[in-house]
Amino acid sequence: MAQDNDTGVVIVGAGFGGLQCARALARRGVRVTVVDRDNYHLFTPLLYQVASSLLNPSDIAYPVRAVFRGQRNVTFRLDDVTDVDVGRQVVRTGSGLEIPYRHLVLACGTNANFFGRSDIEERAHGLKDLADALELRNHVLTCFEHAVTASSPEERQRWLTFVVVGGGPTGVEYAGALVELVRLEMVRDYVGLARGDVRIVLVEGRDRVLPAFPASLGRDAERRLRQRGIDVRLGLLVDGVSEHAVQLSDGSIVEAHTLVWAAGVKPNDLDGALELPRRKSGRFEVDPMLRVVGYDNVWALGDVAGVLQDGEELPMLAPPAMQEGRYVARTIIRLDRGQELTPFRYHDKGILATIGRNAAVAKVGPLALTGFIGWVTWLVVHLYYIIGFRNRIAVLLRWAWNYVFYDRPIRFIWRIARMKE
Amino acid sequence: MAQDNDTGVVIVGAGFGGLQCARALARRGVRVTVVDRDNYHLFTPLLYQVASSLLNPSDIAYPVRAVFRGQRNVTFRLDDVTDVDVGRQVVRTGSGLEIPYRHLVLACGTNANFFGRSDIEERAHGLKDLADALELRNHVLTCFEHAVTASSPEERQRWLTFVVVGGGPTGVEYAGALVELVRLEMVRDYVGLARGDVRIVLVEGRDRVLPAFPASLGRDAERRLRQRGIDVRLGLLVDGVSEHAVQLSDGSIVEAHTLVWAAGVKPNDLDGALELPRRKSGRFEVDPMLRVVGYDNVWALGDVAGVLQDGEELPMLAPPAMQEGRYVARTIIRLDRGQELTPFRYHDKGILATIGRNAAVAKVGPLALTGFIGWVTWLVVHLYYIIGFRNRIAVLLRWAWNYVFYDRPIRFIWRIARMKE
Repeated sequence: MAQDNDTGVVIVGAGFGGLQCARALARRGVRVTVVDRDNYHLFTPLLYQVASSLLNPSDIAYPVRAVFRGQRNVTFRLDDVTDVDVGRQVVRTGSGLEIPYRHLVLACGTNANFFGRSDIEERAHGLKDLADALELRNHVLTCFEHAVTASSPEERQRWLTFVVVGGGPTGVEYAGALVELVRLEMVRDYVGLARGDVRIVLVEGRDRVLPAFPASLGRDAERRLRQRGIDVRLGLLVDGVSEHAVQLSDGSIVEAHTLVWAAGVKPNDLDGALELPRRKSGRFEVDPMLRVVGYDNVWALGDVAGVLQDGEELPMLAPPAMQEGRYVARTIIRLDRGQELTPFRYHDKGILATIGRNAAVAKVGPLALTGFIGWVTWLVVHLYYIIGFRNRIAVLLRWAWNYVFYDRPIRFIWRIARMKE
Repeated sequence: MAQDNDTGVVIVGAGFGGLQCARALARRGVRVTVVDRDNYHLFTPLLYQVASSLLNPSDIAYPVRAVFRGQRNVTFRLDDVTDVDVGRQVVRTGSGLEIPYRHLVLACGTNANFFGRSDIEERAHGLKDLADALELRNHVLTCFEHAVTASSPEERQRWLTFVVVGGGPTGVEYAGALVELVRLEMVRDYVGLARGDVRIVLVEGRDRVLPAFPASLGRDAERRLRQRGIDVRLGLLVDGVSEHAVQLSDGSIVEAHTLVWAAGVKPNDLDGALELPRRKSGRFEVDPMLRVVGYDNVWALGDVAGVLQDGEELPMLAPPAMQEGRYVARTIIRLDRGQELTPFRYHDKGILATIGRNAAVAKVGPLALTGFIGWVTWLVVHLYYIIGFRNRIAVLLRWAWNYVFYDRPIRFIWRIARMKE
């Protein structure tokens, strides 16, 4: 078994929180090891654009090693963390490494939550990582090819019906992007395909979409989704799914070959290896300094940490994760210097979601923005946060191209499949 | 079983030849059905750049449906051709379609040729389609990650040794691109990795690389490859391959975990379904009008056709395939009009291969160009021939970025695998 001699800070996960934490520590010269099962940081808020044939994977992924290029105090390990031995203070990995730590930062994010329904898990298309997005893109494009040669009008309609479950930002943004892909692009590629032939159903369990947003914005988004022809079904859950139909909790059946699952995530527990205290939500219980309760040198941040503020858990979004990442870096340095610690406090700058072309909803401080102004706000914020100058330019160019020419060039079906894990 | 009512020209394959033929026929209003197992046309001469992390798949792939957008006389079928019934004049497909034809054009290209060596086929990485390129890119990037945590210096060296078999354009261009990826980029990402740690071996059975080029150009390419540190081994074949070594025909053994196979292709025979007359090369025997010998309405073109000119078969390259495609379209139209047919004649405009940054060899008419001038020629020709305005711009931007900043941004490892066929 290989043995690593690094005894600095080990960060599990190179998402928004982990990466911010690693960068802040690295800049101060602290020895850092970042472990992630992917060798890239993924800009997940734009994942649905890869799934809907607008962006290339490379537009939203950035190699972790390139982020830390030239910083000799940072080590990257492409590996799965399989176990943490808090007694010996080592992290064990799938490839048999043992990485000792002085401080451990858990920033391992979430997995899709199928609420124990293995039948749904088997049939549904997730939208959590690059492999999901590419698989979903492949699947949707293939549906149109199947529709062309379908043996009956009913079968054709099943190939052209897409059920998206989950009215949060992922579900809303994907449904909005899908309707644009279909109505602005696919109808031009398929002779005899009309706009009305394609049916997109958005299912949400609560009584409105975007429940994390102010009610007025949720209603605005719902109205715009309906205007674009999306069949929004509120207050409903998925009861069952088969190869050709989805059954909803009111007994209604939607005949469709496609179920996209954006209905929830659960904290990544590294396949049950981490036996640390958890909140009811499944997120790790942390103290106000974001240390896992009961441990002096194990920290948790981002989606995996149940950080309480004013009595409520912070939402699973990039902005809190990033602020938490920088806070944990600062706090570890203060601790090393024997300085007093101050509790974490999240500064909410706002929340955004786009419905598509010229339409988004945004809460920025006290402002509630909708329509074109919301959309421009969304655009600027997302361009600003995409890591790396080149990606920003590439994404801007692709968006501009699509906006002006109504053309999505990345419309091909690959003969690739998701790797078994 | 579904039945298609199309009785126009059926073209099998949307490569360079098939696409040119389909476009020329479509422009004249002829009813055309294009069948391909991929929904995109692939600009294969730049496939090695996807494999070496420089280009995105979408830069070299273009949806077939987008090529024929708005042309109601063109039908596209995403399907495998499994059988041709020349008696009933129908093509059968994997999904159970029967497509009747009045003229059949076989433009189904080539597969990698492992010369019956299943042990090599199992271990080697091909470089024939997008899935190959993505798999190879994934593999090479993963090798560097393995090298970091290798348990011994010998094991580390095996991960950092890459054997490329085949000194034709594909092997030479990939080896040249790989050495640049490694020496200009990877060494910056991996602390402790030196240029000299990585070994690239190019194996060619004949006595020089680029045997299809004039001898002086082959020798120039060889000299430049050696200058860039590539270990060029001429007059050697691969005798055997294991997980950690490649054995050459002189008995020498190269310890390596990577074998890239660019040593040859064979005409695609649709898994043996087509029992048409073949030449010794395996390519279909055609008459001077490119009809398969013995058939009035079955045509073959591109790599799959053994077209003789001045006693020799034309090479398996894009330019002859494109000229043949346009010729067959013209000839079918002349035949329909009862006009006299003239035999096909290939007009050789030249041949090009790049060794990397600022270096290529080109034969253009009587001119033999090398070095920077050869490279600029290569650049202009390739940009010119890439289908679609957007791709041309995207490729140019990516090349320019890489040329100025020595940075390849597409360096991430996907958790995807090649689909089983």
